[in-house]
Amino acid sequence: MLMSLTLSLQAEDGRARAATLHTAHGDVPTPTFMPVGTAATVKAMMMDSVRATGAGIVLGNTYHLMLRPGADRVAALGGLHRFMDWPGPILTDSGGFQVMSLSSLRKLDKDGVTFQSHIDGSRHRLTPESSIGIQHKLDATITMAFDECTKFPATHEEAASSMELSMRWAARCRDAFVPRDGYGLFGIVQGSVYNDLRTQSVTALGDDFHGYAVGGLAVGEGQEAMFATLDHTLPLLPRGKPRYLMGVGTPDDILGAVMRGVDMFDCVMPTRAGRTARAYTSQGVMNMRNARYADDGRPIDPACDCPACTRHSRAYLHHLFRAGEMLGPMLLTWHNLNYYQSLMRGLRSAIMEGRLEQHAVTLRAAWAAGDREKQDG
Amino acid sequence: MLMSLTLSLQAEDGRARAATLHTAHGDVPTPTFMPVGTAATVKAMMMDSVRATGAGIVLGNTYHLMLRPGADRVAALGGLHRFMDWPGPILTDSGGFQVMSLSSLRKLDKDGVTFQSHIDGSRHRLTPESSIGIQHKLDATITMAFDECTKFPATHEEAASSMELSMRWAARCRDAFVPRDGYGLFGIVQGSVYNDLRTQSVTALGDDFHGYAVGGLAVGEGQEAMFATLDHTLPLLPRGKPRYLMGVGTPDDILGAVMRGVDMFDCVMPTRAGRTARAYTSQGVMNMRNARYADDGRPIDPACDCPACTRHSRAYLHHLFRAGEMLGPMLLTWHNLNYYQSLMRGLRSAIMEGRLEQHAVTLRAAWAAGDREKQDG
Repeated sequence: MLMSLTLSLQAEDGRARAATLHTAHGDVPTPTFMPVGTAATVKAMMMDSVRATGAGIVLGNTYHLMLRPGADRVAALGGLHRFMDWPGPILTDSGGFQVMSLSSLRKLDKDGVTFQSHIDGSRHRLTPESSIGIQHKLDATITMAFDECTKFPATHEEAASSMELSMRWAARCRDAFVPRDGYGLFGIVQGSVYNDLRTQSVTALGDDFHGYAVGGLAVGEGQEAMFATLDHTLPLLPRGKPRYLMGVGTPDDILGAVMRGVDMFDCVMPTRAGRTARAYTSQGVMNMRNARYADDGRPIDPACDCPACTRHSRAYLHHLFRAGEMLGPMLLTWHNLNYYQSLMRGLRSAIMEGRLEQHAVTLRAAWAAGDREKQDG
Repeated sequence: MLMSLTLSLQAEDGRARAATLHTAHGDVPTPTFMPVGTAATVKAMMMDSVRATGAGIVLGNTYHLMLRPGADRVAALGGLHRFMDWPGPILTDSGGFQVMSLSSLRKLDKDGVTFQSHIDGSRHRLTPESSIGIQHKLDATITMAFDECTKFPATHEEAASSMELSMRWAARCRDAFVPRDGYGLFGIVQGSVYNDLRTQSVTALGDDFHGYAVGGLAVGEGQEAMFATLDHTLPLLPRGKPRYLMGVGTPDDILGAVMRGVDMFDCVMPTRAGRTARAYTSQGVMNMRNARYADDGRPIDPACDCPACTRHSRAYLHHLFRAGEMLGPMLLTWHNLNYYQSLMRGLRSAIMEGRLEQHAVTLRAAWAAGDREKQDG
């Protein structure tokens, strides 16, 4: 009897949940933030450093990995865990989102999508079955159903049609997925910002997936609409299974989504910001290129225990970015991921101790009081 | 009574020496290779990782640091050691070499050189006194005399005139240097490939410097001419003081120079090669971009204990460089520095045990037998 990955709920505080995700590659305390390891590397980070931030699970991108180095090659080299030196759990997306945003000459039909690689122009095809097969070859701990990420804005009719296609594909993904102990397949709820479509999507997915993602958000609808969609959708999902909000987000987005019952997140923000000199801190966002930091001997964030903050000054980070030195992105990516992981640990503790509302007030006050983003420009 | 840095000789094997350099910032076993930290960072490396390779002393570039972030700023922030998180010894060059190779509109006169910054076109001037002053502000453990690196090729007359200028400047550097416990000032022997000029230069420098560099080599004269110049020059230098061959070199260059009595080296080769996919190994040089490594599950160098070799495959490194991922340069720079440091440790052990000749035969045979550079293209 094969047992898929499971979730043990440990505490609830309002609609927020603290739990542990049990997988073939280890346990992950939730709520959790998954650093994005697009091409089998979390950009500018050693995997040891990713571990040091406290990350429990990372994300890989099927679209990038199928094109380079290729799923068969990764499989022959022992799978993605070994290839990238991450023995812990890995979630891979289905490739659908990147096909639509990165590839050229893409053509959608009822069975899948044909496209040209953005790297070398070679032709490829993804279907529900091939996406699941590729994720299997990569040895993803969590496989995501192949779907169409509904564009935004979309009319009700467009959103309905797109969601219905994704639901037909989701059923095919479920049939194609090969169960393995401690592995799992997540379905993705679509329906744009239309509550009736979200309800239909949850119903269509049914109870058989090992976890549920809310897709089609963080695509321009704004935080209020995103939260409203979560308010409607999350209570419809099975309480005992993990819930993943794809591609989200800022610390404030994550806080609001955790308070609404989301368990898992991924986003390029902390890593991308780390390469462009933007620091997420307990006091808001800072731009390290700003001249105000040239002589500032203080750490980026005195509350942070990452190497950038415990060993270096704002002035040093400023210098590294001005000089175009690789160590700037290396240190600041580490800092940002460390901040995100410490944010998640803080949220989890607050949920366990039943003080999430109060914790949220404290977090927001510090972000607002110290927010340097507008000052820094 | 102020005591400058000192050298304790521990063993001699032929002309090669194993010693310990005692400085205000710690002891360094020699022969030693100094990773280059041009702009207050060893490119693509955390300083913890530099430490992990076994490096005992690093180099900073006065030209780069005076222009950005500026010597006064570094001093106000606590000095270069604190700024870059390297409490160990730091050697700074004098700025003379980079002024000639990087700046524009430079004008040499008998007192120094006036030049425009390659960064922003601002005007600056370096003299023997100002170079020593800047290195003092940076808090360099070892200060290098400000000199003119003689161009190559140079006629005997050009080389003589250039060397004589450098010797006048060296005397001014000695007068300008402020002695501090465990700090030191190194003189630089010039004279191009002319033995009579090298002899004159050694005589002109005298015995008062705390160490002696051989400058003006590795500028295109070739290994044979370089070794011939070392054969002539090194026996003229005081036996009890450290000897530094500037800007050298390949593993084979270093081996030959150690056998001739050099104690200290610096070179951008291992770090620059790490950013351009070239790996130095016990089996010669490999180009990780070569297609032959795309499916190669073996470590870069099975004899190496760095993270690139103990945790990843050649195929992974190949993938990272093909994908333009920052982790490629990060891992390969670490590997190359680790290889250089293990080379130095091996040379030191061989000297201590009186088997350097035999060790050299073994090293060269492995490099030659395994050299993949020509195969890799």
